[in-house]
Amino acid sequence: MLKDLITIDGTQYSNWGPDIFQQMRAGGVTAVNVTLVYWENARETLSNLGHWNRAFETHGSLIMPIRRMQDIEVAQRTGRVGIMFGLQNASSIEDDVSLIEIFGQLGVRTMQLTYNNQSLLAAGCYETQDAGVTRFGKVVIEEMNRVGMLIDMSHSAERSTLEAIDLSSRPIVISHANPLFFHPSKRNKSDTVLKALAARGGLLGFSLYPYHLKNGPACTLDDFVEMVLRTIDLMGVDHVGLGSDLCQNQPYSILEWMRNGRWTKTTDYGEGSAGAPEWPDQPEWFKNNADFPNLVRGFERHGLSEEDIRKIMGLNWYRLLADAEQSNGLVRHDADLTAA
Amino acid sequence: MLKDLITIDGTQYSNWGPDIFQQMRAGGVTAVNVTLVYWENARETLSNLGHWNRAFETHGSLIMPIRRMQDIEVAQRTGRVGIMFGLQNASSIEDDVSLIEIFGQLGVRTMQLTYNNQSLLAAGCYETQDAGVTRFGKVVIEEMNRVGMLIDMSHSAERSTLEAIDLSSRPIVISHANPLFFHPSKRNKSDTVLKALAARGGLLGFSLYPYHLKNGPACTLDDFVEMVLRTIDLMGVDHVGLGSDLCQNQPYSILEWMRNGRWTKTTDYGEGSAGAPEWPDQPEWFKNNADFPNLVRGFERHGLSEEDIRKIMGLNWYRLLADAEQSNGLVRHDADLTAA
Repeated sequence: MLKDLITIDGTQYSNWGPDIFQQMRAGGVTAVNVTLVYWENARETLSNLGHWNRAFETHGSLIMPIRRMQDIEVAQRTGRVGIMFGLQNASSIEDDVSLIEIFGQLGVRTMQLTYNNQSLLAAGCYETQDAGVTRFGKVVIEEMNRVGMLIDMSHSAERSTLEAIDLSSRPIVISHANPLFFHPSKRNKSDTVLKALAARGGLLGFSLYPYHLKNGPACTLDDFVEMVLRTIDLMGVDHVGLGSDLCQNQPYSILEWMRNGRWTKTTDYGEGSAGAPEWPDQPEWFKNNADFPNLVRGFERHGLSEEDIRKIMGLNWYRLLADAEQSNGLVRHDADLTAA
Repeated sequence: MLKDLITIDGTQYSNWGPDIFQQMRAGGVTAVNVTLVYWENARETLSNLGHWNRAFETHGSLIMPIRRMQDIEVAQRTGRVGIMFGLQNASSIEDDVSLIEIFGQLGVRTMQLTYNNQSLLAAGCYETQDAGVTRFGKVVIEEMNRVGMLIDMSHSAERSTLEAIDLSSRPIVISHANPLFFHPSKRNKSDTVLKALAARGGLLGFSLYPYHLKNGPACTLDDFVEMVLRTIDLMGVDHVGLGSDLCQNQPYSILEWMRNGRWTKTTDYGEGSAGAPEWPDQPEWFKNNADFPNLVRGFERHGLSEEDIRKIMGLNWYRLLADAEQSNGLVRHDADLTAA
């Protein structure tokens, strides 16, 4: 393995506990952007943050909050997994632009403008119509830029995504998805989106969720790495990273919540179907958090340089998150302090 | 005036804007603990914090957030008023112990366990019965101690206050009230409470609200200073400070909200009465934020030493708040960083 490799996973919603935290360290995960919400409102988001604060107390020898990006080096040195926060929906901010800064103060670094459905901000990737970024959406993009929270369009529709890329003064991310050329999923992204994303300095986090992979659970590591290489040709090696979308050890009820929230009275099967509603099996070479080293081996086998592997495994995410953090109120304020 | 005097006001709920901020600087106010809520729930508290974030953006040349106590020196040097946050009720945390740390992360430094009425935690000073600190109250005290948020019993009943002083492992405060010996108000405090408060390292912030003063608006500066001197004899000079309770330029509707919240369908007049429901007049020598220097002049006239005046005007508050901050998660985490 590469010495002192920094591995940052851009999206995960596992059923965390000491077992998985230990496995993450074994798999070399330095830091993970954990999903806080799918449909939760502001108040519920506070409780979810409260659960993590409790976990920092209880499992302080295994995990630590990444309050500033430099904490990632501390996590690495002290053998703990660094925890960052991301919102997969804008439900947390409700209709209140001021909540963006509040959640930024509480450590939220990424927010999706939509989760599958139309939101107050933009259209989700499951809508049949996509009218682009809304009035409120434009205000939110500007405020996220100011606060240094990364705009994430993983679950958004194409026009909305292109508009968000264009409207944002900072690079945005698609934290967990794959190219459409690899596998035709509503969640995967067109070459047009990927090129626009890269042209504005953004990042695509490669998903390991079987519904985003060619041949699903039967996808091979070689298939996956070949897709990565082709995407690098399209976007450049500075604009790709990981967003595993691992939902390790989660019960079916969680999948139901992700798909149906409180918005439907019937059952929406998302990327599954009535005949196959359950969590899909992970591919053999990426079953859980212990398997990140397999990705490195795959990249090495296909001739990627050490420098490029480090970028894909974590340094591209690090750079983007650290750049965003520079506009964060708290950090800016410390700069005041030093200057004064 | 004393050179580089640090003036910290432990409680204020003025109708803030650039005019009052400018007046505060003119009056030498270095930092103020602003009340965020009287009856607001968690979600509403977020919006109130959002209003302040907006004010920091809009009036950044006049005010700044005190994210760490050392920022008070920055405020002093840069001629801005430092803003700290306090909750006058536990309504913000609802029934969720995890919200204490969350609001701590957002900069809340003090929380009252009660506001006049019985809360989930303890009895307010307007209740006829006081059964002391509740089960949840004990948990909250322990968590506030851990997080470094100061327990404030200004609006609490006597038994509850004595129990909170005793249960808390850290000094607590009565941020804005006066001794009962000065004026018999339900909000003023007995010698027993004041002695117990001081014995455990706590602090009383002297109130300038006319209903807490001998002879109300007709109270003289000499009366006030004599009360301060007698309180110092009782508690020691390290255990007193200011908590003006100024509610400058607030309409009557705010007073109604403070008194009645959403808990009563009839009108409760609090310390006023049906015949005199309105805001009382401030004494001539303390009409508004410009008048803090009058207090210094009064103290000097009565022979208080410069050292003691500095303590009363701000240094005692500073010490207590800085000590509490040392247990704050964020600060502790930075210590990790340095150590690592």
